This record gives sequence, structure tokens and C-alpha cells, in this order.
Amino acid sequence: MQTKITELFGIQHPIIQGGMVWCSGWRLASAVSEAGGLGLLGAGSMHPDTLRYHIQQCKQATRKPFGVNVPLLYPEIERIMHIIMEENVPIVFTSAGSPKTWTSTLQSKGIKVAHVVSNPLFAQKSEQAGVDALVAEGFEAGGHNGREELTTFCLIPMVRAVTQLPLIAAGGVHSRASYRAALVLGADCVQIGTRFALSEESSAHPEFKSFCRNLQPGQTQLMLKRITPTRLAENPFAKQVQEAERAGADEMQLSALLGKGRAKKGIFEGDLIEGELEIGQVAGSSKRAETVADIFADLI
Amino acid sequence: MQTKITELFGIQHPIIQGGMVWCSGWRLASAVSEAGGLGLLGAGSMHPDTLRYHIQQCKQATRKPFGVNVPLLYPEIERIMHIIMEENVPIVFTSAGSPKTWTSTLQSKGIKVAHVVSNPLFAQKSEQAGVDALVAEGFEAGGHNGREELTTFCLIPMVRAVTQLPLIAAGGVHSRASYRAALVLGADCVQIGTRFALSEESSAHPEFKSFCRNLQPGQTQLMLKRITPTRLAENPFAKQVQEAERAGADEMQLSALLGKGRAKKGIFEGDLIEGELEIGQVAGSSKRAETVADIFADLI
Repeated sequence: MQTKITELFGIQHPIIQGGMVWCSGWRLASAVSEAGGLGLLGAGSMHPDTLRYHIQQCKQATRKPFGVNVPLLYPEIERIMHIIMEENVPIVFTSAGSPKTWTSTLQSKGIKVAHVVSNPLFAQKSEQAGVDALVAEGFEAGGHNGREELTTFCLIPMVRAVTQLPLIAAGGVHSRASYRAALVLGADCVQIGTRFALSEESSAHPEFKSFCRNLQPGQTQLMLKRITPTRLAENPFAKQVQEAERAGADEMQLSALLGKGRAKKGIFEGDLIEGELEIGQVAGSSKRAETVADIFADLI
Repeated sequence: MQTKITELFGIQHPIIQGGMVWCSGWRLASAVSEAGGLGLLGAGSMHPDTLRYHIQQCKQATRKPFGVNVPLLYPEIERIMHIIMEENVPIVFTSAGSPKTWTSTLQSKGIKVAHVVSNPLFAQKSEQAGVDALVAEGFEAGGHNGREELTTFCLIPMVRAVTQLPLIAAGGVHSRASYRAALVLGADCVQIGTRFALSEESSAHPEFKSFCRNLQPGQTQLMLKRITPTRLAENPFAKQVQEAERAGADEMQLSALLGKGRAKKGIFEGDLIEGELEIGQVAGSSKRAETVADIFADLI
């Protein structure tokens, strides 16, 4: 299937694997790109040298296009961006920050830039900043999320109404039905996070994957809204957060409760008690373990 | 377009107007039924005698099928149900309660029963209770809402995966694109609330309608989660609720703040300061005033 996005990125299928902390290293990203989609390395959980290693491994594992997802608030953003340019990564997805800062610099090196938005106003601002494509991500997505709480079903038509830029729908895309529905809503492509996060090639811990596959509908919730709204699976840590929030905890108290390294602990180390388990609403929709090839076979 | 729902209810288009407090009296419901959809009276805001009046007016205004939406926790539920049976209303949508209580009684009078659910487990329980159809309503819907916060985009495939019952998608359906997408996700029909609530034939106050049409994306939020999760437009009353919730207000404090008659005040009397403005995420998606006929012309 050809769309504006397959043409822009030179890929076979309009399916992108979201860049996700502690899940999307070179194994996952290269497998998705080899399957004809677009794989993204998640720079958000990598030190600059680790990112360089994953980019180099990715280049060895596939000759097809791949990209890097970069949260713009990353402390070592300058080094990250220079590594991406030095290594000739062809595609960058930016999020959590202003698209004005890096878009033209990256584009001057021939890099295509997509920016992640959670409302139509940010979509218009991103277009003014000159991005090549938009990712519109809904409330149902795992991990960090927008404050507007606009769902994929509402957000995609709203963004489509204000811009003709190539548009990627993210949040809740899981099955062939939701993939097709996202295109009907006005998207040119889908970005899938949760299903790939739980695939064999994801670097997430096996305990995390199996826990998430067995979640019941409704067992993820958007929390930590006073810091950064984040969708987490229910576990003892999430319960602590919800209790603190119900009791009126402020930003400082929530930051103290969160501490450092909780996402690594939960996703990468498989600590299901103390860890922060970032995952989307569709987590329990695939009960069995599957590879990237299985997922593409199911979707296409 | 013929689907399981058009056959079940004997209607022309798979488009249902949601039963909504203070919006859907006989004028709105009969206009939707006359246009070939299914209009629903919203019994939630009617005294029993008022409901009987609206049923009788509806019968005079259209010979086509129409229905009544009944929240099962309604205090005068016995009287409401007897009026519906006496008046030979052909279709009842039940919500907010167990579908076991009334389904077989209504069906014994030849009435078709649909029940509103917010997760696939309730869908299975409703099927066991013998309902004829299901409404699966997502997080983006206005007014009272499920605790699971499952979005329409996630919920419809989840419900479709557990039952083959005729399925109506609700929450965020507004345009031709979202109508088509809901069917692709697995629904047999859509239920539209917000767009009809703001139509000319709705009994909501003109000030309420015009305020809602001008909301920006993200200016509705789900709140009052400790009582009944309710999607409200941002206004001074909603701000008070959010501040109380942030400060850790408990159920009793929130109930006291809410008091009685806030929805009537906001929706029916047009008090944009003190009223509870129940409306969905897509409220601002139609900027201009429109009739039921305009809406059908746009959707079909």
C-alpha cells in the first residue's frame, strides 16, 4: 500500500514501530525495517554512546531505512543530535519539546523529520516549524501522554482538519481493524507501540512482557498528571501513585515518590512491584508471544 | 446501508441519536427517526409524566421507530418502565445498572433492548442477560462515563472480540470519517451524542450550544471520578471541581460541591458559570449551527 508516508520514508508498508524507552533497541528497530515497516530506536533511554552503538548495529542488520525517536528535553540533546547526523540516520522523530529547535538543522543534512503532537494546535505549530510529517498520538497510548487527553478517534480527524501534512496515527493501533480504521480517520500511516514493545525482539524484560499481555481491559491508567501524564499498568507502584494523587499530593511529593530509574526497573529489569510499567490500553489484546514477523503477517 | 442494527430496529441508516439529559426530547428524537436514523428520548432528566408526554408527542411526530434511554438507577424506574410498556415504545436502551433486571420483562412485551457498556466484561454479562444489542461507549463521550477509561478506538475491537451481538459504537463519532471508522473497527452502527445535542432540534439552551460549539480541542475533561466519572466542558464550575479534586476532596465533599440540578442549570437553563456542562470531546468540531437534516446530509 502506497501512502504519503511510504513515499516520504521509502518504506513498503505504512506501519511504524514507535520509539519506546527500554524496548526499542537495534534488534526491534531493524526487524521492523526488514519487514518493510519503519523501525525507530528509542533514544530516550540511551546514553549517547549507547545510541551510537545501536545505530551502528542497526545499519549492519538492515539496509532499509530506520530512524531514531528523540525526546527534545533530553539533557544531552546536543550530543545525541550530532551522533545522529554523523551516523547519517535518515529519519528522526522528535517529541516533548519545540520542533523549531532542531528541524531545519536536521533537514539540512538530508534527514526527514516527524514531530509527535497531542492536539491540532501543536500540529499547526509543527507545520510552521517545517517538519516533514506529524505523529498524532492519542490518550490510549502507553507512557508519556498529552495533557488534553484527546483520544486517537477524536484527535486524528481534528489534526487532519487543520493540515495536509503526512500524518501518522498513534495510540491504540493494534489489529488489522484498528490499522484500517486509523487510515479511514484520515491518517496516512500508523505507529504501533505496545504490540511491538511486547514482541520477541523488544529489549523489555520477559516478565514485563508476559505481565502486560495478561492485563485485563481497563488495567492501565493515565497518572502522574501533575508531572508528566503517563499511562502505566496497574501494579503496587502505580497503586502508590494513585493513592498519593487521591490524597492531593503535589508535584514535589509525586517527583519524590517517582524517584529515578523506575521505568528501567519495571520495563528492562522486570521489577513488577517497584517498577513503572509504561504500556498502552491495548496491552492485553495479544495473549500469546509473537515475533515482528508474526505481527506483520497478521496486519497485512 | 443495511447492517444487523438497521434490521433489528427497522431503520434506514445505522445512525442512532444518543439519549441525553436535557437535550433529547420529542423534537430531537422524532427528527432523527424521521431522517431515517433512530431517535432516543432521554428519560434520565424526565419525571414519569414528562416522559409519557414526550412519548406521545414523538408518536404524533413520526410513524418511524424511536426509543427511550433509561438509566436503571433512576429512582422511579418502576413507573418509567410501566409507562414505556403501556405506550408501546418499540425500543429501550438501558444504562447504569444491571441488564438482568428489566431485559426479559421488556422483551416479553415485544420491546427490543440494547444495553450500554464501557468494557468487554460488561458486554459478556449483557449478552448473558439476553439483550438484543450492545452500545459500547468510549472515554471521549460526554456526560457519564466508564471507570476503565477505554477509548472508542480500543473498546470497539475489544467488545467485538468477545461477542457477535449487534454492536453500536458511541463516543467521539461526529463526521463521515469517524462514522465509517467505527464500522471498520467492528461496530454495526454508530450512536452520536454531542453533535445532536448541539443541533437546532435539541432542547439544550442556545447559550450552552453556542458555548460548546466554540470549545477548543482539550477543553473537556473527565472529572468527578470518585462519584460518577463525567465529561464536562471547562467552565468556572468545572474548575472548582478540578481544584477540589487536586486538593484530595473525598466523595462527600464532591457530592456537596455538585449539589442537585447542576446539569439542568448548565444544559437546559444555559448557566455557563454555575452549571454542569456535559458534552463530548468533539464538541468544537462543528462551528456552525445545524439541523438534524443538515447532519444527516453531511453523514450520508
